[in-house]
Amino acid sequence: MTERDPQVQLLLTGSELMSGDTVDSNSALIARRLAEIAVGVQRKVVLGDDLELLTGELAAMTATADVVIINGGLGPTVDDLTADVLAAAAGVAVCEHPEAVAHLRRWCAGRNLPLNSANMRQAMLPAGAAIIENPIGSAVGFELRVGRCRVICTPGVPGELRAMLDGIVASLAGQLPRPPQRRILRLQTFGLGESTAQQLIDDAYPDWPREVALGFRAGAPQMEIKLTVDSADHHDTLQRCRQQLEQLLGDHIIGDGDTGLAARVLELLRERGATLVTAESCTGGLIASMLTRVAGASDAFHAGFVTYADAVKHTVLGVSKATLAAHGAVSEEVVREMAAGALQRSAADYAIAVSGVAGPGGGTPQKPVGTVWLAWGARGDIRTRCLCWPVERSLFQTMIAAAGLDMIRRTLLGIDLEPRYFSQRRAR
Amino acid sequence: MTERDPQVQLLLTGSELMSGDTVDSNSALIARRLAEIAVGVQRKVVLGDDLELLTGELAAMTATADVVIINGGLGPTVDDLTADVLAAAAGVAVCEHPEAVAHLRRWCAGRNLPLNSANMRQAMLPAGAAIIENPIGSAVGFELRVGRCRVICTPGVPGELRAMLDGIVASLAGQLPRPPQRRILRLQTFGLGESTAQQLIDDAYPDWPREVALGFRAGAPQMEIKLTVDSADHHDTLQRCRQQLEQLLGDHIIGDGDTGLAARVLELLRERGATLVTAESCTGGLIASMLTRVAGASDAFHAGFVTYADAVKHTVLGVSKATLAAHGAVSEEVVREMAAGALQRSAADYAIAVSGVAGPGGGTPQKPVGTVWLAWGARGDIRTRCLCWPVERSLFQTMIAAAGLDMIRRTLLGIDLEPRYFSQRRAR
Repeated sequence: MTERDPQVQLLLTGSELMSGDTVDSNSALIARRLAEIAVGVQRKVVLGDDLELLTGELAAMTATADVVIINGGLGPTVDDLTADVLAAAAGVAVCEHPEAVAHLRRWCAGRNLPLNSANMRQAMLPAGAAIIENPIGSAVGFELRVGRCRVICTPGVPGELRAMLDGIVASLAGQLPRPPQRRILRLQTFGLGESTAQQLIDDAYPDWPREVALGFRAGAPQMEIKLTVDSADHHDTLQRCRQQLEQLLGDHIIGDGDTGLAARVLELLRERGATLVTAESCTGGLIASMLTRVAGASDAFHAGFVTYADAVKHTVLGVSKATLAAHGAVSEEVVREMAAGALQRSAADYAIAVSGVAGPGGGTPQKPVGTVWLAWGARGDIRTRCLCWPVERSLFQTMIAAAGLDMIRRTLLGIDLEPRYFSQRRAR
Repeated sequence: MTERDPQVQLLLTGSELMSGDTVDSNSALIARRLAEIAVGVQRKVVLGDDLELLTGELAAMTATADVVIINGGLGPTVDDLTADVLAAAAGVAVCEHPEAVAHLRRWCAGRNLPLNSANMRQAMLPAGAAIIENPIGSAVGFELRVGRCRVICTPGVPGELRAMLDGIVASLAGQLPRPPQRRILRLQTFGLGESTAQQLIDDAYPDWPREVALGFRAGAPQMEIKLTVDSADHHDTLQRCRQQLEQLLGDHIIGDGDTGLAARVLELLRERGATLVTAESCTGGLIASMLTRVAGASDAFHAGFVTYADAVKHTVLGVSKATLAAHGAVSEEVVREMAAGALQRSAADYAIAVSGVAGPGGGTPQKPVGTVWLAWGARGDIRTRCLCWPVERSLFQTMIAAAGLDMIRRTLLGIDLEPRYFSQRRAR
């Protein structure tokens, strides 16, 4: 390793990555973990399970990089080639590795599975490779130098990769010439688009400091704003920029780091000893699912109702048949009664109710696809709003579920400001 | 374009892809669409928003590939560089493109948004580039030749990319020297691991034909088995292999192509004029959400209950307090009463009920994290089973929700065979 920070490249292997059958989330995981020690990834290359292509690319990478992390190709099937590729690039043989065999025996024994010959392929590793323990899966990781480049081979199964990364990151951090000075600040927002945020910042702060790199990640439902400085001299500037963003976009900021809307809502409820109930039509259980994906949700979320058909809006939540007949399921009156019914049946303190047209069918000229009524609030203080968010069904459900959670967040925080999406997504 | 199939490489750009802030699903989408016309992607390279690195890589790619598809970097922010990169590689200037300006004006007008200067950046394109329409977003795509290589620039927003791919794929197909002979058969399965499937196939069919390439994609919850032949001579062999897989793993096969469990269950219910109700504890609304993500779910799914707390299992679903006290919420008796209560309250024909310990907290020696009771079936014919599936919380919820749906699928199809996961995931 040289005196500068290591130059890291990733080589991802798998025909399923080239055919598009699998989406690669592993390289993002590796990069995020390396970013914690201010090590960047310079380049990623993805290739199919082809011995010749992989060996050629690895040889080229090891000629310039300090570290190459290979991901994938450690499995038990015939298209898993990583051990062969690394052996070829390093000019060594592949042979049965006793530690890997021992690991496989333990792994199978713990699961009452026979050790089959397909699995045994996973013990055939390049001669001289050092094992990286896999606490979860059958495939051990391994590492070997090719010239002066460390080549680290990791499994394609995300949970197994995750379990190995602590050790790999610690080992790379130990070789850094100086402690990392990078500071990254990530803010999670909801209800802002990338270009809106960029324009608001440009207009408000034309003198935004060059040393604070600004990045946006428009996800669904959240958008992340990321500020990065690379020297301790700029840590104060970073804090000042953060305050400026709080002033400008504060009500849209959910929290720092990876804070998700559902986790933030649960935290706010927990702080107040309060609980939330959901009454979902067009989001079909997604709000409940977002909440219960968070560990410990049971403190503040006890019950949810998915009333997808009109009849069950009446039988399960007590929405009156007259209201349904007069206004239709996608109406202010119905979501109001859904919220009230859910509060009554669950003894919860706050409710979210949604009813809308997720599409692609079911739209009318009066209520086109994307139309949705939301009701939210506490017993005796239910507010409502109609939005029109005409996007593809699954994205619609995601954004509307998040909007419902966001309105509870704003209610709990006492934010009276209208969110920008109320004006941008107004039903005509 | 030469007489052989085009050699396609992808260049993905975005610092958010290098930092791991964004997972790239676009390259998978592009590859899947190209696979339909039997055009493979040879290589993918991912780089950050760095003008020099991008220009260098693009120059290298255009020297060997017939087609390079660039994805990302078309946005309105300062880190969007694709137009500059392509202009540099092609040795042309960047200038305001009238068609792109017109598109931006229409796009903003349709949304009642002002055309701001950030957006106007999206009209600055390499001189001579041809526009690719974007029916959704503000960024047009564009194409330009560098030497003999077609370089096609596409937006990073997945929905916008998707909307452009029809035209791009059609244009590439028009340049193929001969009609594609490739045939790809994809089977969706649930409840099989990759190595189990590989071993079962190896054991049953040691003479599996070489010309039928076998691939696995272990997703969550489904695993895809993919068979590929590259010549019309082997289409019959492909069909024979498919029949062999049906014989071997038939009860685990959900369907062809992209068939999802929820969509298959809804289809089977619809065929029978039947409806399903869910009563979820540990899966917290995920089963309902999986069902309602499918367009047209309302035919067969009317209601779902998320009874996350013990009290609401009683108040909402009528599970007796005595049962809860005697057996605990994670018990055969409770899921049976949850299913019965849900059927009674919804007038549905079939029910799924689940209650388990999703973790990371809440486990006991008798009921460790991963323990779950499932109940499923029709009124008067409810079956139950306890599984232990000790994986990370979110994966647990996904696999258990799918197992519930799978048991309804098996019930509706009259499959009596025990699924393999019942023996592999048995609670000890």
